[in-house]
Amino acid sequence: MLQERSVVLIGAGNVATGLGCALHRRGIPVSQVFSRTQESARALAEKIGAEAVSSWELLRNDADLYIVSLPDEVMTREVSRIAKGREHALLVHTAGSVPMQVWEGYTARYGVLYPLQTFSKAREIDLSRVPLFIEANSPQDTLFLREWASELSEQVYEADSDQRKALHLSAVFACNFVNHLYAIADEWLESHGLPFEALLPLIDETARKVHTLSPRQAQAGPAVRHDEATIQVHLKALEGLPEWQQLYERLSRDIQDMDREKQNTLII
Amino acid sequence: MLQERSVVLIGAGNVATGLGCALHRRGIPVSQVFSRTQESARALAEKIGAEAVSSWELLRNDADLYIVSLPDEVMTREVSRIAKGREHALLVHTAGSVPMQVWEGYTARYGVLYPLQTFSKAREIDLSRVPLFIEANSPQDTLFLREWASELSEQVYEADSDQRKALHLSAVFACNFVNHLYAIADEWLESHGLPFEALLPLIDETARKVHTLSPRQAQAGPAVRHDEATIQVHLKALEGLPEWQQLYERLSRDIQDMDREKQNTLII
Repeated sequence: MLQERSVVLIGAGNVATGLGCALHRRGIPVSQVFSRTQESARALAEKIGAEAVSSWELLRNDADLYIVSLPDEVMTREVSRIAKGREHALLVHTAGSVPMQVWEGYTARYGVLYPLQTFSKAREIDLSRVPLFIEANSPQDTLFLREWASELSEQVYEADSDQRKALHLSAVFACNFVNHLYAIADEWLESHGLPFEALLPLIDETARKVHTLSPRQAQAGPAVRHDEATIQVHLKALEGLPEWQQLYERLSRDIQDMDREKQNTLII
Repeated sequence: MLQERSVVLIGAGNVATGLGCALHRRGIPVSQVFSRTQESARALAEKIGAEAVSSWELLRNDADLYIVSLPDEVMTREVSRIAKGREHALLVHTAGSVPMQVWEGYTARYGVLYPLQTFSKAREIDLSRVPLFIEANSPQDTLFLREWASELSEQVYEADSDQRKALHLSAVFACNFVNHLYAIADEWLESHGLPFEALLPLIDETARKVHTLSPRQAQAGPAVRHDEATIQVHLKALEGLPEWQQLYERLSRDIQDMDREKQNTLII
């Protein structure tokens, strides 16, 4: 049944590529890939056996499902152009922080399919283990989207636009900001002639640990131990880099604040 | 040969417990565990078939190797007590940011054995995959420590005290601070009725990604995309929590600064 639905991908960036490749591997055909850049459209389309188009005029009208993975501001700007003439179809976007209502007034059947994962063209993602959060403007399409998404992932949940925004914000902390801390560690090690690879077992264990302990329980390090001597040694080492020094101080203070709160909760 | 060396552990915290259990599993006997708290000493000693002591007077004098995993300030305060009468033995501490010279003047043979990993009593660590950084005050003991440590881990490296401090500082960013970002994400999700578990596939992929891409190459998210609309949506959502709002702003600006540097490097 799913295989009979005709799917079009609008966008050819990291998320569109991740979704497109996952659909292809599941045997769900994508008939067309649209990107404003012909080269990007072609790169993804070739991988998944779809037609590549880069002009809005050539975008098919007869698909059943349109998945829109464009940069947020482009998507918001082009919503009328995407919707026009496709009122019969279900249109979904994949953005964490764009409300479903962005579609309202432009088309009849719409929703959101938000994969909570970080995608890069350089890495293949196993979508079956990626939580997919869905939302649609009718119970029928919610049901359809749930069934359709369940073919791709073992973890499909409904989330309204507020919950999705909360998920996205938490993902920025737990992924994008985390990666930036890796980048700081990388630069610091490099400037001391040490390889970033030495940190990988620690990075892996830090991620694994929160599978079985809550992040609060898992917290370790000089800040939560109130090891002021080490904190001072580190702040002194960061003296030439005031931004990282301030970041170190702020995060350490924040860890101590959160720990104090936890203690207070336990006492009360 | 290694099995014949007599080892004493001074300390019974997370690191001592991690090391002690790993030694035990490798069949390397630990004759005694010292902790200032008899209960902690006994808990670890029982696990690894050692004698538990909590009085300095009962600490053995006849071991070949003493591994000291005490809180930094305790270790620094007690160094003379630990060394006295044990000048024949090799004494090593396991602290990232305490220089090897802390031993100087107190004993003849000394060094450091620094495991770059996060330990908790609740989790068993496979030490064979933990990088161990060693330092000793003589070539003979460096060689001995290298051979001895190689029985425990596939990754044994020499690092002087400055390099070890750099490793420790980078570990604070890549582990302790990273875990705190997980904790923020956890709290944020909880306050929106969402389970932290939904983030685990993202957290895992974020860690896996830097095995094959450098953290700079792996950087994703609204900041590096200069997606100001999303950044503003998130800052507004954090309005009631000025500390996390400021942290969001600082980290986003820092990501953009680092990205700009990268661009400049590419142009030059």
